[in-house]
Amino acid sequence: MQYPLSPTHFIERAGRWFGGRAVVSEGDEGTHRGSWAEVLDGARRVSALVASWHPTPGDRVATLGWNTHRHLELYFGVPAAGAVLHTVNVRLAPAQIARILEHAGTRTVLADPEFTDLVDRVEREVSRPLRKIVLDGGSPSSDAWPSYDELVDSVAPVDPLPVWPEESAAGLCYTSGTTGEPKGVMYSHRAMALHAMAISLPDGFGLGENDTVLPAVPMFHANAWGLPHAAAMTGAGLVLPGPRPSVERIAHLLSREGVTFAAGVPTVWMGVLEELRRSRLSLSPRLRIHSGGAPTPSSLVDAYREEFGVEIVTGWGMTELTPVGMAAHPRHDMSAWTPAELAGIRTAQGTPLPFVEARAVDETGTEVDRDGRSVGELEVRGPWVAASYYQGGSPPESFRDGWLRTGDVATVDGRGYVRLVDRTKDLIRSGGEWISSVQLENALMDDPRVSEAAVVAVPHPRWQERPLACVVLKEGVGELDGSTLFAPLEGRFPRWWIPEDVVFMAALPRTSTGKFDKKTLREWVRRERGDGSDGS
Amino acid sequence: MQYPLSPTHFIERAGRWFGGRAVVSEGDEGTHRGSWAEVLDGARRVSALVASWHPTPGDRVATLGWNTHRHLELYFGVPAAGAVLHTVNVRLAPAQIARILEHAGTRTVLADPEFTDLVDRVEREVSRPLRKIVLDGGSPSSDAWPSYDELVDSVAPVDPLPVWPEESAAGLCYTSGTTGEPKGVMYSHRAMALHAMAISLPDGFGLGENDTVLPAVPMFHANAWGLPHAAAMTGAGLVLPGPRPSVERIAHLLSREGVTFAAGVPTVWMGVLEELRRSRLSLSPRLRIHSGGAPTPSSLVDAYREEFGVEIVTGWGMTELTPVGMAAHPRHDMSAWTPAELAGIRTAQGTPLPFVEARAVDETGTEVDRDGRSVGELEVRGPWVAASYYQGGSPPESFRDGWLRTGDVATVDGRGYVRLVDRTKDLIRSGGEWISSVQLENALMDDPRVSEAAVVAVPHPRWQERPLACVVLKEGVGELDGSTLFAPLEGRFPRWWIPEDVVFMAALPRTSTGKFDKKTLREWVRRERGDGSDGS
Repeated sequence: MQYPLSPTHFIERAGRWFGGRAVVSEGDEGTHRGSWAEVLDGARRVSALVASWHPTPGDRVATLGWNTHRHLELYFGVPAAGAVLHTVNVRLAPAQIARILEHAGTRTVLADPEFTDLVDRVEREVSRPLRKIVLDGGSPSSDAWPSYDELVDSVAPVDPLPVWPEESAAGLCYTSGTTGEPKGVMYSHRAMALHAMAISLPDGFGLGENDTVLPAVPMFHANAWGLPHAAAMTGAGLVLPGPRPSVERIAHLLSREGVTFAAGVPTVWMGVLEELRRSRLSLSPRLRIHSGGAPTPSSLVDAYREEFGVEIVTGWGMTELTPVGMAAHPRHDMSAWTPAELAGIRTAQGTPLPFVEARAVDETGTEVDRDGRSVGELEVRGPWVAASYYQGGSPPESFRDGWLRTGDVATVDGRGYVRLVDRTKDLIRSGGEWISSVQLENALMDDPRVSEAAVVAVPHPRWQERPLACVVLKEGVGELDGSTLFAPLEGRFPRWWIPEDVVFMAALPRTSTGKFDKKTLREWVRRERGDGSDGS
Repeated sequence: MQYPLSPTHFIERAGRWFGGRAVVSEGDEGTHRGSWAEVLDGARRVSALVASWHPTPGDRVATLGWNTHRHLELYFGVPAAGAVLHTVNVRLAPAQIARILEHAGTRTVLADPEFTDLVDRVEREVSRPLRKIVLDGGSPSSDAWPSYDELVDSVAPVDPLPVWPEESAAGLCYTSGTTGEPKGVMYSHRAMALHAMAISLPDGFGLGENDTVLPAVPMFHANAWGLPHAAAMTGAGLVLPGPRPSVERIAHLLSREGVTFAAGVPTVWMGVLEELRRSRLSLSPRLRIHSGGAPTPSSLVDAYREEFGVEIVTGWGMTELTPVGMAAHPRHDMSAWTPAELAGIRTAQGTPLPFVEARAVDETGTEVDRDGRSVGELEVRGPWVAASYYQGGSPPESFRDGWLRTGDVATVDGRGYVRLVDRTKDLIRSGGEWISSVQLENALMDDPRVSEAAVVAVPHPRWQERPLACVVLKEGVGELDGSTLFAPLEGRFPRWWIPEDVVFMAALPRTSTGKFDKKTLREWVRRERGDGSDGS
């Protein structure tokens, strides 16, 4: 029964048995309507090309690309050549990208047309010359930037694709941490394959051939949550939203393509909701939405259910987990629960997928009670959980005895529902007690007057730190002061949890992954208010 | 990301997160209402006991048992001790069981009370002394047959269960072939774990925590089709039908326990259907039935859908595949198909699960066209497909270049739907052409007057072989002759396919796995009709 686990099996399978199933790729030039047979042919050509450039297994091949059919061919073709697909977050600063390419030792870069200038700038800061290929779709090719389409057309496809030992490296992704040594996570063929199977289970995303899948999460993030692999494995249809996907475009694609499963961060689903309302779009009655990467407000879950009959299932993952570790489905005995009771399930981070072990531990590494109240740092391990960083050793703050220390503070209940209380670094220390910024944010965002809310710590002479709310009000909501805004929080939280003050903003800063950027927010608040501890 | 794949993870997971979920075991003494927490505790005690008897990893521990909670504890506890769970088909003859125990080198046997006499008889024919333990449930223990319950109560549970390298042997099952060298299939922890994940996918059995699973297939057959492992992995409820499960008992358990997923052979579902009708039982609206192990008549599929709203999904497997390889779900673009068109899908053997490769090949080993018409021998390979038999080498008629030769003749279409035409040895050779006994049987069983039908070859002086129909009529159907019975076949098949004659019988002989026993039927027909080629 020697048979290596690899996503290469998935693309061969998709091309062979699901060859006619649609792979739709939205682009600036219009809609590309392809198929899994076409993706397999592209992957076979990519594999030939990459093997000619990098005959040494394990060489890194970088992409700077949106969710397109060309990027999809690279997802399967690069690992099948024995090389490592190194997806680069296009939203990082040039200096960060240079550091990551340098750290990874990457010598080949395939980039969408809009990122060629960026790569040219980055190239001056890396020590090795870069082979550069443009992923077409608009700009003309040049000697410096030959055309991907022309190159793949010029080679014969590798048929069948070679299969590598399952422990071989297949992918590399750096976490979005912007300080310190770059932290790269290397994915094996095996980890990718097992992860795709696990997320496709009914208590994961529940994917089958009958689904049409839209990854609203970028393909430059952690395998696009495994959806390209899972869609190929199951033979599902795939809809790729293309360059710079706006919430308007995603909303219209959901409707136009009859999408039945979509996944992305909560802020995307907030924006998509507005567009669904504005344009009165109809959706497939089978559409389910998976929301992860940040806490999902229960008001958002309610709005989708009540207005569109769409169930949002929340989940949790990290780049270090390939990236999905949990999904939050209700259990068999909850069918008679009230909506209020169920809200606590639907907005949990979830229960661990099969093969993922999760526990909350205290400072000594001892598991805390699984009672849903005791808090500890969340630790995870499993066959698709990183046990070290690429060429970065295993720093004690990141790994302990084979467990990944997530940096999240969480409770775990007796059924395995994990609820994040906060990031260890986002907790607010007030008078020797802890205040959860996440719980305050969720409560503020449940207010119908509030569009977005983030809570950060500001230094305080007596209490050490105090919470400050940064709030974006909805259009048409008049002026408010803190006491009016915080009134709904009274009674829900201890008095000393109520934020010290509020700053109203036009928009909250976001990270390259679309989450509220609390680091930037803290810096901005300290600068603007002049009460920072950074000496200003 | 070093993390071994094993069903041991599933039982630890089930006990930890799904500890309260019911595991119901029907017995002669009544209904045992247990839980996954209880099964985990039992498995931990079994593990301690087995490790004390067999400190050498890989030792075989045999069971002769029905589907009970004690057998379930052994399913998880024996492999966790590093030993191999050797499930023995209780329906075999003593001499066959002796040969199998001898071949496997098994020295410990745990048996249900009704099989202790059988084991005592068998013991005289094996060369090693046997350690014997009775699985309680009625008969008193003795010095020769100490009590399982007392033994497990006497040891401390192993907590946590040890995890073995994933390629270690965990299970052993002999195919029901009754001649030649015994053919044992050894299952690794890895194969069992991957198989459980794959069958739980939406396009497999589609199992989740919300399910209540009833394995109507015995636990002494090929891991009970993986259902005990899959139920533990997903945290589903489990209903075990206990000793000598009648179709009446299965029908009442489906209703009483609110079963949502059940799996077994078609003959079981034929009998259950009668009882459902007779007792007017109500079923869970979520119940799906998986039917495999033999071809499922489309009339049976129609009856369940029309009378009970229950969808039967067909599938295909072999002991050599752990055992499931395929399931037959309709595709996304078949929603507008007519019932007649869909019948061809619902009664196909299915399409391969992820990681299972399947092809039909001609005599030279070349794949035949995937057009749904070209026939060839079905070959399969994958991470849970045997590549050799236990201590039996790899005979050329069983394996070729890493592929398992199934002995089934099949067509494969462009979407991967595999349809068995026949066993290579059940095909009827008539006038240089081939007649499929299976297709004739299915057509005969679609006749509302017919209860059971099998078609076998009888020697013919001119045409070499001709088909003979052996038919059981439904109660109340008057006398019929061949021309009346075969009238519905005219036009559906070539004239020369129409059976030569019919024999009406009170019941068809069955194999130990509940399938029509064509070997016995052929021998009986030849003897009775005196037209055999065996010299009679």
